Amino acid sequence: MSIQNIIHKCPPANYIFNLLTDNSDGSISSKILLICASLLIILLFNKKILPCNCKASNYVTPIKFEYAVPDEAKPNWKGKRIPNTNVYNEDDPTHLQCYCPATGQFLSRFDNMTKLDMDKLISKCSIAQKSWKSTTFKQRLQVLSTLHNYILHHQDEIARVCCRDSGKTMLDASMGEILVTLEKITWIIEHGVDVLTKEDKRPGPTNFFMQFYKGAKVVYEPLGVVAAIVSWNYPFHNLLGPIVAAIFAGNGIVVKCSEQVVWSSVYFIKLVKKVLEICGHDPNLVQLCYCFPPNIESKLSDDSGKSTADYFTSHPTFKHITFIGSKPVAHHVLKQAAETITPVVVELGGKDSFICLDSVQDLNKLSSIIMRGTFQSSGQNCIGIERVIVANSKYDELVNILEKRVASLRLGSDIDDLLENIDMGAMISDNRFEQLELLVKDAVNKGARLLYGGSRFCHPNFPQGHYFQPTLLVDVTPEMDIATNEVFGPILTVLKGGNDLNNIIKVSNSSPFGLGGSVFGKYEDCCYVADKLITGNVAINDFATFYVCQLPFGGCNGSGYGKFGGEEGLLGLCNAKSICYDKLPFVSTQIPAPLNYPIKDNEVAWQFVKAMNTASYTWSLWERIKNIFKLAKNA
Amino acid sequence: MSIQNIIHKCPPANYIFNLLTDNSDGSISSKILLICASLLIILLFNKKILPCNCKASNYVTPIKFEYAVPDEAKPNWKGKRIPNTNVYNEDDPTHLQCYCPATGQFLSRFDNMTKLDMDKLISKCSIAQKSWKSTTFKQRLQVLSTLHNYILHHQDEIARVCCRDSGKTMLDASMGEILVTLEKITWIIEHGVDVLTKEDKRPGPTNFFMQFYKGAKVVYEPLGVVAAIVSWNYPFHNLLGPIVAAIFAGNGIVVKCSEQVVWSSVYFIKLVKKVLEICGHDPNLVQLCYCFPPNIESKLSDDSGKSTADYFTSHPTFKHITFIGSKPVAHHVLKQAAETITPVVVELGGKDSFICLDSVQDLNKLSSIIMRGTFQSSGQNCIGIERVIVANSKYDELVNILEKRVASLRLGSDIDDLLENIDMGAMISDNRFEQLELLVKDAVNKGARLLYGGSRFCHPNFPQGHYFQPTLLVDVTPEMDIATNEVFGPILTVLKGGNDLNNIIKVSNSSPFGLGGSVFGKYEDCCYVADKLITGNVAINDFATFYVCQLPFGGCNGSGYGKFGGEEGLLGLCNAKSICYDKLPFVSTQIPAPLNYPIKDNEVAWQFVKAMNTASYTWSLWERIKNIFKLAKNA
Repeated sequence: MSIQNIIHKCPPANYIFNLLTDNSDGSISSKILLICASLLIILLFNKKILPCNCKASNYVTPIKFEYAVPDEAKPNWKGKRIPNTNVYNEDDPTHLQCYCPATGQFLSRFDNMTKLDMDKLISKCSIAQKSWKSTTFKQRLQVLSTLHNYILHHQDEIARVCCRDSGKTMLDASMGEILVTLEKITWIIEHGVDVLTKEDKRPGPTNFFMQFYKGAKVVYEPLGVVAAIVSWNYPFHNLLGPIVAAIFAGNGIVVKCSEQVVWSSVYFIKLVKKVLEICGHDPNLVQLCYCFPPNIESKLSDDSGKSTADYFTSHPTFKHITFIGSKPVAHHVLKQAAETITPVVVELGGKDSFICLDSVQDLNKLSSIIMRGTFQSSGQNCIGIERVIVANSKYDELVNILEKRVASLRLGSDIDDLLENIDMGAMISDNRFEQLELLVKDAVNKGARLLYGGSRFCHPNFPQGHYFQPTLLVDVTPEMDIATNEVFGPILTVLKGGNDLNNIIKVSNSSPFGLGGSVFGKYEDCCYVADKLITGNVAINDFATFYVCQLPFGGCNGSGYGKFGGEEGLLGLCNAKSICYDKLPFVSTQIPAPLNYPIKDNEVAWQFVKAMNTASYTWSLWERIKNIFKLAKNA
Repeated sequence: MSIQNIIHKCPPANYIFNLLTDNSDGSISSKILLICASLLIILLFNKKILPCNCKASNYVTPIKFEYAVPDEAKPNWKGKRIPNTNVYNEDDPTHLQCYCPATGQFLSRFDNMTKLDMDKLISKCSIAQKSWKSTTFKQRLQVLSTLHNYILHHQDEIARVCCRDSGKTMLDASMGEILVTLEKITWIIEHGVDVLTKEDKRPGPTNFFMQFYKGAKVVYEPLGVVAAIVSWNYPFHNLLGPIVAAIFAGNGIVVKCSEQVVWSSVYFIKLVKKVLEICGHDPNLVQLCYCFPPNIESKLSDDSGKSTADYFTSHPTFKHITFIGSKPVAHHVLKQAAETITPVVVELGGKDSFICLDSVQDLNKLSSIIMRGTFQSSGQNCIGIERVIVANSKYDELVNILEKRVASLRLGSDIDDLLENIDMGAMISDNRFEQLELLVKDAVNKGARLLYGGSRFCHPNFPQGHYFQPTLLVDVTPEMDIATNEVFGPILTVLKGGNDLNNIIKVSNSSPFGLGGSVFGKYEDCCYVADKLITGNVAINDFATFYVCQLPFGGCNGSGYGKFGGEEGLLGLCNAKSICYDKLPFVSTQIPAPLNYPIKDNEVAWQFVKAMNTASYTWSLWERIKNIFKLAKNA
């Protein structure tokens, strides 16, 4: 079994392995054979054929450097546990309190930023961008390569900082924070220059005359200073993602992190600043802002004016805002951005369905993907599986498998000791626990069956931690609140999909969101379903890979609008300038005599422009000739 | 002179002409020769080589039909002149009053729409879209071809309807309404299918393992019902433009026209409905809404709730809004759209500069373009020339030429009699006249020289018309209000550009807008300047052709954001769905055993994912091999 898990990742190995052995467990000898064959193939193909290496010339040798790991992120750190696990501490109301949601250990405290603080940081960023925008792509690639290299060789440290501040497990950090960030940076290194510098020629006019001599193209230029307002669920990835795209496109960027993850965000922004500095650039190009949300801030101050968060959003310096967060906050952010007419990419939550069609072969394998897609980061993923919709013929069997598997999950923290065998970490806060319990109760009242979990969990070792039981809720129907409200927690809900594809599609499209979705089964059936899903992203026979693949990422309907990631993500951070020019050196537009002010003869002028329009746009050859004659006559 | 104005439009003719004659006036014999040569070339090239005809297969034979012209749009119509030329009539406050701004003649009155009226229309549109979205491109092309053919053969009628409702001249309507609309429709016919159906494959992941078997693509699907809120300056083009793009992409569309041009908008929307009907489709697919702006509505009703205009903007049915209007209204529209989280393309005004470099050869020819670019439609163009910035060496000569030309312009209306030799029509309303006069006065007080005009004009034949004198203001500096505020009227302002390119760029970039601009001179110098202009669009050695060329059109900074027109315009009206799939039939993702819940050994799992990340993203061959070994060991 174990060997298959490697070879499925490497098709040539898979192929050779299948040739050599039918033994699916893989004997020792076949294992060695496999490794040797793989090695041989890698050596042969590595530098020559593999697409991964075609653009190796874009990889600028990284600069190595040291960056101190904070004590709090070292294994077995002895931090004091605090009773009041909340960012707001009544006894110290002017500071943001940072703590570990998995253990309740105090991490640090930070001054709540003022509007003036933000002004200063934004202004510094703006100054730094003025020289940064003129850097060469090679210089920008060096920054990205250096960052890439650091991440690759400091995975333990980065993961531990993430876990300490968010309560997730090391595995969750590895896949949700590090892998996706490395993919994003590598993708930009490999494709970014092409995207931003392509000779983006356009077809130009269809006008019969103009087509001869008018050329048209689009060029992409830095916007200036952009902003990102990001959520807490991936403190490393959500911070780094907008930064690498923005600075690669020649912009400066100011990120406002969630008040929940200030400690790790401060650490990571310093890392990026360090990289910039080491590569010879002004570290002020990237800035971090944070403050209490308006509902807490209003307790602290009598200032009836704009909240500090709103002040940030409507800052006139920003040319673009990437917002990753929830719908209620989005309304607020968009209203603020309306004041400065700043474009916003709005990435909200989803109610992503995971569709199991009748044609799925191996429900055991499928259940492994469902488990990861649901319980990774305790379900706190915008593209996490929120609904499993199963063809009736597979329903009972899959529910049986899931029941056993959900019951096997263990909660806790492996930050201090990797030998701790746990499956799921804490949640960022306990402020939504009651709401989750109510959603489960409501569903049960309406006929759903609760097969496991359903309520908050007081961990014996970490009583101050924010744990919620892994939960399995089946026989959920689209009418229940839990089928339309985003859960963003470790609750696996299973819905019956009925007996045909169209019914499954109907169930899937019954939510107000439209972010992503995945569909499993026979490829043709999957395509049929994918085509009809009202979402911005679909993975076929896989989970969430559209996000990894650097496709343009974004939702529709209740999930927001706009795209980040991939080509669209990079181009969206640019001013797309449309340029029209003369293709032929000896022809240029002049005002035809009959149309030259003052008009000599209005009747003649009218006949002239009418003939010009007709000759320009008719599809009839004879009409064209006739009108060219008219043009000549009236000229 | 006159002959040149034809041949510059037709390069082969130009070439032959240059071969045959040095006489720039063109003798009769050379004129005939030219025509014959042109004809020969057209005949030879027409169906074979010219790009215009490559896509002729997309042109579906149009259906011919009759559509009655209203009496008001017939020449010499005798309409009653009204004393109160305003859309709001105190004696009849529940109706929108339509009149001709050039003559003050009453046109019609329309019920001010209620929220319920709008609901009904939007709902009808939504129903029609449900079947329209499944139409083939051939069916949609037939609608466009039929519309195209009607416009081409009814230019007089369309122009006259536009003129009657907006007060512009027939020439202005021909170029600003008809030519650009024909270009847009023809462009979509020729390129639209390719844009929307292209196999938009993406590079996919860079992950060393995933790159082998993961494919990635983007497909474009209709959004549903979209909205457009459009300005009054081009009642035909501003209405038709959003409609043809939206319906071609498979959407339904509801347009809210300005209260200033309800009469013509009603006529034109019925035209589109007629075309849909004749082609066998539900005419409800396109709808028109109109109502008083909130400041007038508040006089009429005690309803303290949302205004009807705001109700429209925040209608939950709309998946996308195209807004063409002014900045103050944009704030409002964006705040309303924030309630429903609806994406908005924001096309505001500009302060476009027309740059004359030191290297310009013929200032007389240039002045002809300046005159059209400034005074077309009485300067009521978002991309009209708002500032002429001239290199010092050319300044005095150009000012002298312009002084003579501006003084030669005649105001009036040619709707009823094409023999009326006039150059400039009326403005839509007189409500900004005082503001324009103040801007001129302020500039004069600060040192500008007013060489012509500067105030409203009471036309002897049309005392109820809204006329403003063509105005020439020179020695304007960037500090004056008129250099930073959009004029949107017939005021030609000239600024000194200094002695070098960088100074000209600085002057040009000193406005808060960023819509378009044009730069004239040596091609290399123009490119240098175009590169540095902070705008969304630039025309090199031409005026506003970026708009005609169906390049993505849109501004930055104070001119809004988002693009319509061309490829981006069409794609922006679609849901871009990112799809990730397996390229190889025999390889798909499975959860590797060490990561399968419940985790068997957390330490092993961590080493596994770490090795997986490293093997996936390292640029070093040996590190990759080493980590593949580790993967195998931990599997």
